[in-house]
Amino acid sequence: MTEPTLDVIGIGNAIVDVLSNSEDAFLVGHGLQKGAMTLIDAARAEALYDAMGAGIECSGGSAANTIAGIASLGGTAGFVGKVRDDALGRIFAHDMRALGVRFATPPSDAGAATARCLIFVTPDAQRTMQTYLGACLELTPDDIVEEEIAAGHILYLEGYLWDPPRAKEAFRKAMKIAHAHGRLVALTLSDAFCVERHREEFRELVENHVDILFANEQEILSLYQVRDFDAALQQVRQLPGVTALTRSAKGSVVVSGEEIHIVDADPVARVVDTTGAGDLYAAGFLYGMSQGLPLRTCARIGGLAAAEVIGHVGARPQVPLARLLAEKLAIRA
Amino acid sequence: MTEPTLDVIGIGNAIVDVLSNSEDAFLVGHGLQKGAMTLIDAARAEALYDAMGAGIECSGGSAANTIAGIASLGGTAGFVGKVRDDALGRIFAHDMRALGVRFATPPSDAGAATARCLIFVTPDAQRTMQTYLGACLELTPDDIVEEEIAAGHILYLEGYLWDPPRAKEAFRKAMKIAHAHGRLVALTLSDAFCVERHREEFRELVENHVDILFANEQEILSLYQVRDFDAALQQVRQLPGVTALTRSAKGSVVVSGEEIHIVDADPVARVVDTTGAGDLYAAGFLYGMSQGLPLRTCARIGGLAAAEVIGHVGARPQVPLARLLAEKLAIRA
Repeated sequence: MTEPTLDVIGIGNAIVDVLSNSEDAFLVGHGLQKGAMTLIDAARAEALYDAMGAGIECSGGSAANTIAGIASLGGTAGFVGKVRDDALGRIFAHDMRALGVRFATPPSDAGAATARCLIFVTPDAQRTMQTYLGACLELTPDDIVEEEIAAGHILYLEGYLWDPPRAKEAFRKAMKIAHAHGRLVALTLSDAFCVERHREEFRELVENHVDILFANEQEILSLYQVRDFDAALQQVRQLPGVTALTRSAKGSVVVSGEEIHIVDADPVARVVDTTGAGDLYAAGFLYGMSQGLPLRTCARIGGLAAAEVIGHVGARPQVPLARLLAEKLAIRA
Repeated sequence: MTEPTLDVIGIGNAIVDVLSNSEDAFLVGHGLQKGAMTLIDAARAEALYDAMGAGIECSGGSAANTIAGIASLGGTAGFVGKVRDDALGRIFAHDMRALGVRFATPPSDAGAATARCLIFVTPDAQRTMQTYLGACLELTPDDIVEEEIAAGHILYLEGYLWDPPRAKEAFRKAMKIAHAHGRLVALTLSDAFCVERHREEFRELVENHVDILFANEQEILSLYQVRDFDAALQQVRQLPGVTALTRSAKGSVVVSGEEIHIVDADPVARVVDTTGAGDLYAAGFLYGMSQGLPLRTCARIGGLAAAEVIGHVGARPQVPLARLLAEKLAIRA
């Protein structure tokens, strides 16, 4: 068995975000589920884009944001995901490679365009996402290369991969490879409605195959179909791995069997757009774990990375997170 | 002669910006002229993009930003400019129309791609721009439609149009139409190096054809080849129209013959990216003029709009400026 050469390898939907400020009335008028990620087809994406306000474009994708965050923190990271060889696909690939992320998945040269997520940011900084998966549907087990997966100390997977059918097979293949090579497997539950769609499979996954689990409050309540956070905590305590539960302004709770850490959220001058908050928390946490830092410190790095990304529009860091880490937590790569 | 139906019609290079934070060492290493707008060809644009950090994409273009600002302030506005019918071109057109801007210039369906401006934002919030003009070179006098130009109470032109040869002819044609219909003609000098390239023609323009002139300190010094601001002011006082001179943190000075107003800059919590500061100042000023407000108030609206745009990455407002106008200056559309 060889030593890993990367801190984290991530697999996820490769998406370019289109972000626009909007009013709650717009969400209501267009029947959008506030705060959720909803899948839409090409025609709906066109119609919604026509109705959407002026926006900015920014590379996105949940696991992709996390991987970008790890690279920005100074970690070494790779990404597997499918774009089309079009303008948005080139933007996505550029933004990954510009951070030093190893991204070698060949783009598709036919079929659907690169995935887009229309993100409506309301005045409360909440984000409502409408995703056209496009080329992400072309990710198959053939895109999972054993040596690429084995290269990562941690394999990070997004629950959203359960939506495109062949991506799920790719996910399972990667997980098997990772464990066969003695690597850790990390998963984010992604979205409460995504949990709703795939609850039984997700439960089986977290009980038997996942070493590090990320979920926010709604997601973990949905997974266990319980009403309050304490009931969810009782379930989580029985999981074999580490679970990091994010609670927005209330910070996060990290559970590893009998070990529990409650960590405050980092102060933010003004919360502008919460897109990517969970993704960047995962980035900080996984970076900390890959450096062998204590769970409490991992959670603090997660909070720091999340605080940066919610201070501006877009789900990717706008300053090198390694600098914040050095300044605020005196941690140097 | 018919009454105008729009406050302002603008003509400019139709550009999508790619913005990335970078260090001064990057500018030095790649031989970039800090703070300036430099024209580059397709090959150089590819090479620089490869070297550039992860970025965000945002519709840009100097006059286009101004027109977007006027629409955001609650004014009625139109834009003439050339994109290609590609992904970035569709983004540009969407972002204009989403603000209610009348944008009817047909995109080119062959030839160069939609223009891109690579913008390197240094830690001092200064922006350094490298522009690939692409489809902008396809703007010709045929794109200037008499009734579209006559529809605007004010015609707004960017000095950058002097770079693509046929756009200059389009500019002259539009100016003639505007004056023939009794409209006002406004011009921004755009960039000190642009003034350098076209000084004699710009001088002739501002002396004989321009009713409202915008320039920053470097641009006006370059136009008159003088060393200090007071010497420039003496020249400007002799111009037949109104001149608004922007001075970054020192605010602006408005000159109309013997009438002079010195207006402070608006306070900004943190200057993040100065891209678009001058464009948005012009937006506020022109909006004020189109509403018949006093010059001093026009300058204050300009300062308010500029302050919004320098508080975040990207040259387009992220909140409706009409709301800021109502809140901060108690001016309602």
